[in-house]
Amino acid sequence: MRTRLEKIAIIGVGLIGGSLGLICREKRLAGSVWGHGRSESNLRKAVELGLIDRYSLDLREAVEGADLVVLATPVESIIKTGEKISPFLRENAVVTDVGSAKEKIVRRMEEILPRNIRFVGAHPIAGTEKSGPEAAFAELFQDRYCILTPTEYTDNGALGLVRELWEQTGARVDVMDPEKHDRILALISHLPHMAAYALVDSLSKKEREFPGLFSYVAGGFRDFSRIASSSPVMWKEICLQNGKAIIQGIEVLRGALSEIAEAIENGNGEKLEKIFLNAKVIRDGL
Amino acid sequence: MRTRLEKIAIIGVGLIGGSLGLICREKRLAGSVWGHGRSESNLRKAVELGLIDRYSLDLREAVEGADLVVLATPVESIIKTGEKISPFLRENAVVTDVGSAKEKIVRRMEEILPRNIRFVGAHPIAGTEKSGPEAAFAELFQDRYCILTPTEYTDNGALGLVRELWEQTGARVDVMDPEKHDRILALISHLPHMAAYALVDSLSKKEREFPGLFSYVAGGFRDFSRIASSSPVMWKEICLQNGKAIIQGIEVLRGALSEIAEAIENGNGEKLEKIFLNAKVIRDGL
Repeated sequence: MRTRLEKIAIIGVGLIGGSLGLICREKRLAGSVWGHGRSESNLRKAVELGLIDRYSLDLREAVEGADLVVLATPVESIIKTGEKISPFLRENAVVTDVGSAKEKIVRRMEEILPRNIRFVGAHPIAGTEKSGPEAAFAELFQDRYCILTPTEYTDNGALGLVRELWEQTGARVDVMDPEKHDRILALISHLPHMAAYALVDSLSKKEREFPGLFSYVAGGFRDFSRIASSSPVMWKEICLQNGKAIIQGIEVLRGALSEIAEAIENGNGEKLEKIFLNAKVIRDGL
Repeated sequence: MRTRLEKIAIIGVGLIGGSLGLICREKRLAGSVWGHGRSESNLRKAVELGLIDRYSLDLREAVEGADLVVLATPVESIIKTGEKISPFLRENAVVTDVGSAKEKIVRRMEEILPRNIRFVGAHPIAGTEKSGPEAAFAELFQDRYCILTPTEYTDNGALGLVRELWEQTGARVDVMDPEKHDRILALISHLPHMAAYALVDSLSKKEREFPGLFSYVAGGFRDFSRIASSSPVMWKEICLQNGKAIIQGIEVLRGALSEIAEAIENGNGEKLEKIFLNAKVIRDGL
C-alpha cells in the first residue's frame, strides 16, 4: 500500500480475519497487526501461526490507535461490535467489515459511527468448509471477488485505502452500492443455500411416507446438499439481514420450478430440453 | 451364480452396460458375453477393454440364444429396444433393464414381450460424470443400491436370477414395486436435478438485470449446479417417464421454499434456524 499503516486491528481472527492478518503481516502493510476475539486459545494460536502480531481480549486496547479496524466476526455480531468499538476509535480511523449481506450493516454503521470515523463496507466472496485460525491461508482471496459497497456518505480516501488492502490480497476488487450487492448475492449465494435447505427439508417431510428414504441417496443429492450443512445460525442471520432480496430470489426459483412442472404436465419435451440445455451451457461455461 | 449362463447379451455397452459386462466376464457368469450398440468403434473398444467377449451390430445376432438380455441403453431407447428384440428372443429368456424410471418401462415391457419371455425391471443407482466404455470399471456398483421392481406378473425364477446377477456386482439389492421406486427416485435424484436446473434457469433470467451475474458465483453455487450439467436429453426423458412423481416432488419443494420465505418475511429467526439445523443434521448424517 502507498501508506504503511501504524496499526491494523482485526476483530474476529477466524478463516477470513486470520487470512487477512497473515497477508498484512507478510506484506508488512502495518507496523503491527492486532487481533481480538472471544477465545484466548484461538488468539494465541493465531499469534503462533503468524496471523497477527499480538492480541488483546480487551476490545478497547485492541482497537485503540488503529488506523484500520476490520470487523471479521460472524455476520450477526458485526453491528454489535461496531457499536462497542465506536467510543474507542481514534479520529479518522477507517473501519471496514467482511459481512456477506451489506445493506443493513452499512446503513447501521453509518448511523452508529461518528462523523470522524470512516466506514467502508466490504465483502470478500471467499471461504472454505473449514473455519477458525488454523484454516487461514494467504491465498484464500486470490482471484476471488471482493465487493466494496460505498454509499453517498463514504469517504473517498477510506474507500481507496480499503481497495488497496484488498488488492494486496490478490482479490478482484469490484465496487457497487450495498443494495445491488445484496440482490446479486441473494441470487448467486443465498438462493442456492435456501434451495439446498428446502430440498433436504422436503425429503425429510417425505421420510415418514418412505422410511429409509435417505439411505438411497446418490451422488447428485450429496453434492447438491453439501451446502445444507453450513452453519444454521449464520444462515438465519443472512436471511434476516438480506430478507427482501432472498424472498424475491425464492419467488423466481419457485416460478422456474413451476415452469418445469407445467412442461412435464403438458408432456412438452421440447421445452424441458430447452430449459435443461440452457442450464447446462451456462453451468459448463462457469 | 448358481447356474452358469450360456450367453448374456448387453445392449448398450457404455458406463453401466460395460461395467456389468466386465464383472460378468471376470466372474465367468456366462459362457460368453455379447455386446450390441450403434457405434462399432465403441464396441471394438469394449472388446479390447475386456468388457465383452464379442459384439454384433445386428441386434438379432446379439440376442439370439441368450439366456439373459440386459437393456443398458439410454432410458429413452429401452422400450424401443425391447420391441425390436422381442421376435428374436429364445423361449424363457430373461430380459432386464437398468433404466432410472421404472413404472412406464416395466408396464410397457409386460405388454410388449410374449408370455414365454421373463422380464424383470432393475435400476442400479450408480454412475459417474463420465460415460462410454472407457469409463467402465468393475467396482462401479460396489455398495450401491440396485433396486429390482417386480410386479404381479414377474416370474420368481427370473427375479432370482437378476438378483444373483446384481449381488455378484457387489450392489445392495433391494426390491420394491415400480411405482414406489419411481416416487423415491423422484425425491432423491430427479428432484435435486430439477432444483439445480431451475436454479440456473432463475439466474439466467436475472442476468439481464445484473449483467455479468454469473462471474460472481462462488463455490456453493458451483457444487450445487454441477448436476445441471447432466444430459438434457436424458433428463427430458426421465421427466416424461416419471412425470407424476416429479411434479409431486416439485410441489413439496415449492412448499418448503414458501415456508422459508414466510419465516423470513415474518422475521422468524427461530423457525429458520430450526429448518436449517434439521437439514444440517440430516445432511451430516448421510
